[in-house]
Amino acid sequence: MIRINDNFHRLAPTYLFTEVARRLKAYATANPDVDIIRMGIGDVTCPICPAAVEAMKKAADDQSDPSTFHGYGPEQGYEWLRRAIAEGDYMSRGVNVDIDEIFVSDGAKSDTGNIGDIISTECRVAVTDPVYPVYVDTNVMAGRAGTPTPDGCWSRISYLPCIAENAFIPALPTDSPDVIYLCYPNNPTGTTLTRDELARWVEYARAHGSLILFDSAYEAYITSPDVPHSIYEIEGAREVAIEFRSFSKTAGFTGLRCGYTVVPKELKGVAEDGTIVSLNSLWLRRQSTKFNGASYIIQRAAEALYTPEGHRQVADTIAYYMRNARILREGLEQMGLHVWGGIDAPYIWLRTPDSMSSWEFFDFLLNHCHVAGTPGSGFGPSGEGYFRLTAFGRYEDTVRAVERMRQLSVNE
Amino acid sequence: MIRINDNFHRLAPTYLFTEVARRLKAYATANPDVDIIRMGIGDVTCPICPAAVEAMKKAADDQSDPSTFHGYGPEQGYEWLRRAIAEGDYMSRGVNVDIDEIFVSDGAKSDTGNIGDIISTECRVAVTDPVYPVYVDTNVMAGRAGTPTPDGCWSRISYLPCIAENAFIPALPTDSPDVIYLCYPNNPTGTTLTRDELARWVEYARAHGSLILFDSAYEAYITSPDVPHSIYEIEGAREVAIEFRSFSKTAGFTGLRCGYTVVPKELKGVAEDGTIVSLNSLWLRRQSTKFNGASYIIQRAAEALYTPEGHRQVADTIAYYMRNARILREGLEQMGLHVWGGIDAPYIWLRTPDSMSSWEFFDFLLNHCHVAGTPGSGFGPSGEGYFRLTAFGRYEDTVRAVERMRQLSVNE
Repeated sequence: MIRINDNFHRLAPTYLFTEVARRLKAYATANPDVDIIRMGIGDVTCPICPAAVEAMKKAADDQSDPSTFHGYGPEQGYEWLRRAIAEGDYMSRGVNVDIDEIFVSDGAKSDTGNIGDIISTECRVAVTDPVYPVYVDTNVMAGRAGTPTPDGCWSRISYLPCIAENAFIPALPTDSPDVIYLCYPNNPTGTTLTRDELARWVEYARAHGSLILFDSAYEAYITSPDVPHSIYEIEGAREVAIEFRSFSKTAGFTGLRCGYTVVPKELKGVAEDGTIVSLNSLWLRRQSTKFNGASYIIQRAAEALYTPEGHRQVADTIAYYMRNARILREGLEQMGLHVWGGIDAPYIWLRTPDSMSSWEFFDFLLNHCHVAGTPGSGFGPSGEGYFRLTAFGRYEDTVRAVERMRQLSVNE
Repeated sequence: MIRINDNFHRLAPTYLFTEVARRLKAYATANPDVDIIRMGIGDVTCPICPAAVEAMKKAADDQSDPSTFHGYGPEQGYEWLRRAIAEGDYMSRGVNVDIDEIFVSDGAKSDTGNIGDIISTECRVAVTDPVYPVYVDTNVMAGRAGTPTPDGCWSRISYLPCIAENAFIPALPTDSPDVIYLCYPNNPTGTTLTRDELARWVEYARAHGSLILFDSAYEAYITSPDVPHSIYEIEGAREVAIEFRSFSKTAGFTGLRCGYTVVPKELKGVAEDGTIVSLNSLWLRRQSTKFNGASYIIQRAAEALYTPEGHRQVADTIAYYMRNARILREGLEQMGLHVWGGIDAPYIWLRTPDSMSSWEFFDFLLNHCHVAGTPGSGFGPSGEGYFRLTAFGRYEDTVRAVERMRQLSVNE
């Protein structure tokens, strides 16, 4: 019998959102008449904008004719899409990103998960806590995490608490990690770093030779002027940071699957023999060997988001969700709850009332309000006692969810 | 500066097909008026069949309406597609595969590349030689390959030669590898294993505790009745084999991106502490952590292939390519070349004339006939002195390519 990757064996058998979905399914099966409002898994509900839908239908027609048929595309993504990204997402903000630094993929989950392929398993990793579980779990799988500790952490991963007491701004590490995951606007807390705060991280990485893996999947939700959309707005970041972007939350592509990763050419790593190696070249090699490009149809849809109509339609959808965020935020605050996020991000992070644990509040909210959220403790030990709700629901459902919770708080 | 994965550093900087494409681009740039017929990279040229195109357009419309919008799908693929696969590809051949054993993905390249995540880096790997480079390169990346040897092999990989002298039937390994990659119908040689021959491998794997990674991406091209379409047609294979399938070559999905992998529940591995672990569970954990499902639009296209119209249209396309294969095969044979494949596979494998090396013949064919193929040596040392042409071109181009080669052989 073959030997498995033992790192998998150390991992909890279930991914957080799979577990949330499993519990919801069990509850729904046991209570078939209950109308559950789902604000747990961070999935969107608004349809794909007309510009992207039309682009997909045209692309489907392209595929029906030998003269416009597209077979294998470049593993890195079509140049027309990479050019649209470079112009629309970077040049428009005064940031210079070369199209050879952009790698289009089937989504940021794949990229943030697979990026570890190119770095040593010896690298020490730091994450903010709470954190998107993919960062931790994929490092466990790769053997970088060490062993589980009694408090639900991993012995070789540094956790940087983000809690109410530090206003959700992580302290700089004290142990010089090689790799630092930062996600801003943050999932799950919905909080941000200002330009000055992010500049401290870039400075730290430059001083300590660290690599920042910057996940800006939620940048489209930023409203505050002093919050950077890209880490490359910070001087010197090109030498220390890889940036991950996704069309999932920007344009509702969770079911279409497209994102991209920027690996600047200045980024270097070192091999055992002392050779200095370009991380851009390594990632290109990884992607061209283990990936065959994102779907042509979906790349055309992504391209359409950069047209004036696409841009306007996307902005409308984001405004729709941010109205939900405001309703959630204000509604919960009126109930006397402590709430963060919802201003530059589609996530509402709240302190559970009455010192309930995160999973206790999950059950409480599900049983009494038929509202599903995500337990903060699922995102790491510093998430215990917190809870995440998303603004990605339908407006009517968001209003109803707040109303149900208000009724409950009045009745209690 | 961070330490890289040194295994990448050991790898040749370029993937075979990237190198072929690079040389072609250079040639085309230097000779802009030359009409090159491309039969190198195994890409298809026929458009997507109407059933799949219509399904994509309908799916795009689904995505435009909140009531039919699909966000995150199951990481494993939608149940309707997995059911269609189980019925259309397996039950129809008397093979029982449960829908929970099917994992839909963005393609077989990703899956054959990523499958290594779940097995120990200590596992010893065997490949047939010549071989699809992804099997070798991804094991190099994972650290299973050892060091490069002077003959272009890797010290910890066992190579099983498939050459004219053994009729391209690999001998059973003598060193009990843990993992054996088999691709049948074979890429690049176009040869097959009969049911009895494949049964010997299943028996071997059962006796030696090996895992067979069976790539049947080309099964739709099989015409010989004694050639199995699935390894699960062989008794006992469910305990020793993972099967990879792709819609790329079956239905021209190279640019759409969809495939699937079957991991039977009987398949087990063992952890360091002796625990027996289900490989199906490990792969589910891998996919749900590092992948977010194939695109909804593309899964709908794949589903349409299992309708009666889809089935008929796909069969027409395959017949089109197999006519090309026959023209190539017969044409080259008439020129006195030694040719294999093209009966149960869309690949023609030929012995280079006049003892030319594979790359010499690549240049020769490109310069004199303006026909691009793939050097056999790019697939491994036993491919030296061979050359691959694909039947995936347009009919007219295939006829012209043969005519150009015939002219050359007449003139010489």
